[in-house]
Amino acid sequence: MSAAVIAGIGQTEFSANSGRSEARLAVEAVLAALQDANLDVSSVDGLVTFGHDPTHEIVIARNLGLEGLTYTGRTTHGGTDYCTTILHAKLAVEAGVASTVVCYRAFNERSGLRFGRGFGEGFGAFTPGVSDETDQWGLSVPFGLRTAAGWIGMYAQRYMWEYGVESVDLAEIAVAARAHAATNPAARFYRRPITVADHQGSRMIVEPLRLLDCCMESDGGVAAVVTTEDRARVTGRGYARIAAVATAAGPEQHLMTSYYRPDILDFGELAGVADRVWSRSGLGPGDVDLAILYDHFTPMVMVQLETWGFCDRGGAKDFVRDGNILVGGTLPVNPHGGQLGEAYLHGMNGINEAVRQVRGEAVNQVPGARAVLVSAPPGTPSSGMILTIGSA
Amino acid sequence: MSAAVIAGIGQTEFSANSGRSEARLAVEAVLAALQDANLDVSSVDGLVTFGHDPTHEIVIARNLGLEGLTYTGRTTHGGTDYCTTILHAKLAVEAGVASTVVCYRAFNERSGLRFGRGFGEGFGAFTPGVSDETDQWGLSVPFGLRTAAGWIGMYAQRYMWEYGVESVDLAEIAVAARAHAATNPAARFYRRPITVADHQGSRMIVEPLRLLDCCMESDGGVAAVVTTEDRARVTGRGYARIAAVATAAGPEQHLMTSYYRPDILDFGELAGVADRVWSRSGLGPGDVDLAILYDHFTPMVMVQLETWGFCDRGGAKDFVRDGNILVGGTLPVNPHGGQLGEAYLHGMNGINEAVRQVRGEAVNQVPGARAVLVSAPPGTPSSGMILTIGSA
Repeated sequence: MSAAVIAGIGQTEFSANSGRSEARLAVEAVLAALQDANLDVSSVDGLVTFGHDPTHEIVIARNLGLEGLTYTGRTTHGGTDYCTTILHAKLAVEAGVASTVVCYRAFNERSGLRFGRGFGEGFGAFTPGVSDETDQWGLSVPFGLRTAAGWIGMYAQRYMWEYGVESVDLAEIAVAARAHAATNPAARFYRRPITVADHQGSRMIVEPLRLLDCCMESDGGVAAVVTTEDRARVTGRGYARIAAVATAAGPEQHLMTSYYRPDILDFGELAGVADRVWSRSGLGPGDVDLAILYDHFTPMVMVQLETWGFCDRGGAKDFVRDGNILVGGTLPVNPHGGQLGEAYLHGMNGINEAVRQVRGEAVNQVPGARAVLVSAPPGTPSSGMILTIGSA
Repeated sequence: MSAAVIAGIGQTEFSANSGRSEARLAVEAVLAALQDANLDVSSVDGLVTFGHDPTHEIVIARNLGLEGLTYTGRTTHGGTDYCTTILHAKLAVEAGVASTVVCYRAFNERSGLRFGRGFGEGFGAFTPGVSDETDQWGLSVPFGLRTAAGWIGMYAQRYMWEYGVESVDLAEIAVAARAHAATNPAARFYRRPITVADHQGSRMIVEPLRLLDCCMESDGGVAAVVTTEDRARVTGRGYARIAAVATAAGPEQHLMTSYYRPDILDFGELAGVADRVWSRSGLGPGDVDLAILYDHFTPMVMVQLETWGFCDRGGAKDFVRDGNILVGGTLPVNPHGGQLGEAYLHGMNGINEAVRQVRGEAVNQVPGARAVLVSAPPGTPSSGMILTIGSA
């Protein structure tokens, strides 16, 4: 069996208004990824996307003129399942069910349906299973807890109280993301760095989250090509090995609002992902050169740093100081600017950055990067993986 | 690697009004399947369902009190993807990503949202990708082609014209299904056989489909447990081997309305499934003892008989005469009564029947059944598999 690798990546521009359909964004991203992989369009026989992605796999297939598909599938849990797209593709490729599977995600999430507007304005309709999550939503939505900022704000409030984290600590994460984005021409915040004072002066959205603690809803498309290492070796392009990838749900798991555990900060789903990824890869926190962390809201970056073991529980606020998470620091985080700085694409643009980094092609390249951690946030079934350097 | 097998099956009663939530139906079916498999509830670490199933995997997990899940995923294409649930589970189990994956589907499709009512009354909202299928739906829905009966009627009309099939020929399929259902206490049409005259006297729904050519929308839940053969061997229960399973989309594939091919009866998706299933299993039409065919509408049973090679193209109308598809005939089809006679559960109840048959436990048992073909219909990305006898 030839192991599955990520052989190419593609994306559209990221904007506030793409001016075209979501299907077109998806097709453009898939084509760009195949071109990047130096693979024929006709080689694609599998497609994977999110459960609530608006573009049907067969729309992609028809627009690419494919003869057919032998594997399709969808992940379930929104952005937190973004690495699960790679897991599904890997299983299909390694079992020989498909030879080349493209994972994609594309939407007009700023000019069209904005998830950030929350429940009642589209969120529910696009989330599989919501109709029977009434036990969950029924307990929170009627009381005004109906947006992602509100749901995450609940965790953040507790986390900050528990560990003495203040808003200025969160600012470090926003400032680092915007510093990276400032030198990334693909970023929506290219050339627009911020200071801690900017963060502190930004308006409160949901306590304790200020405007600059929140990622920016965007229009765009992203795709990544998964195929066998044997195929990738002959393309002349660099590729990323998938050292390990995992998804997990924890006990008493809810979608976005796993509040009903003995400890509201017990994120068993992400701990489960971390355990499996470290164990399957044989690597540990000291072995990765940088991390792609899901930064929809700044406090969840801290929780990820701790859950993956880069620092002790409660230790993230010290860790993010003094430039540790900047390129050049001890653990660069999101050198592309992340979802706070580049664009909010439900994590998928972070996979592309991880591939660029192990290929040595990133605009904010971490010198000698050989292993990249890619992590989803907790609170919802989560996912994560480690990509390592391959050779062309 | 221990091969994945189907180790247990479960289902609720099938009815016109379950009187309870879809989540409860799903949980009941999953529990029944685990009990049937003689496996602890706590052994479940994976769940797979349809893209538009209303019950979220974590709702099942919470209600079962599971510690967590390490694999979840959704198929895309509705009922025609029903064998794809088994494919996804098999990939996860054989890769060791999960040890026991339950595939489930549950809904109140009669008392709640009726798919049969068609586009504009719920169908669209529950089908992933529909928002960008506007190129497709925009060409048909405004002209009244907005229900499954209408979409399939278009194929059926051409098929019948091409091969001289008449309504009395379709009647044979309905009569056989109802004959089987009549002796199956789990069937909604238990003890209610019909005659050809009944079929001919039933009202026209969409030409050429009469009422008795259409399956019956139902409330209910179905589940099947996929685990390794090593685990299944020690449970004391019979199990079914998965000799082969495949899914495929064809060229110019649409959802339900793949009309834009040079030949409207070119069902490349199902032919692609059949090629892969025969080739991966090393079996052929002469090697299966019975077939589970997706009988949402009678004409599509004929198309499946031909595409899988049980008869030549156009030969199904002769094949279905003289009791060939009844238990005791040369190729018994849907001994449980199928979706015309037992219940319309998007195919999943057919998987359960196939398992009962290779276990020798069916109410309308095909004597000595060792291999069962399970097929989805064409016209939409399709799926199929062969289950064979395992030993306990």
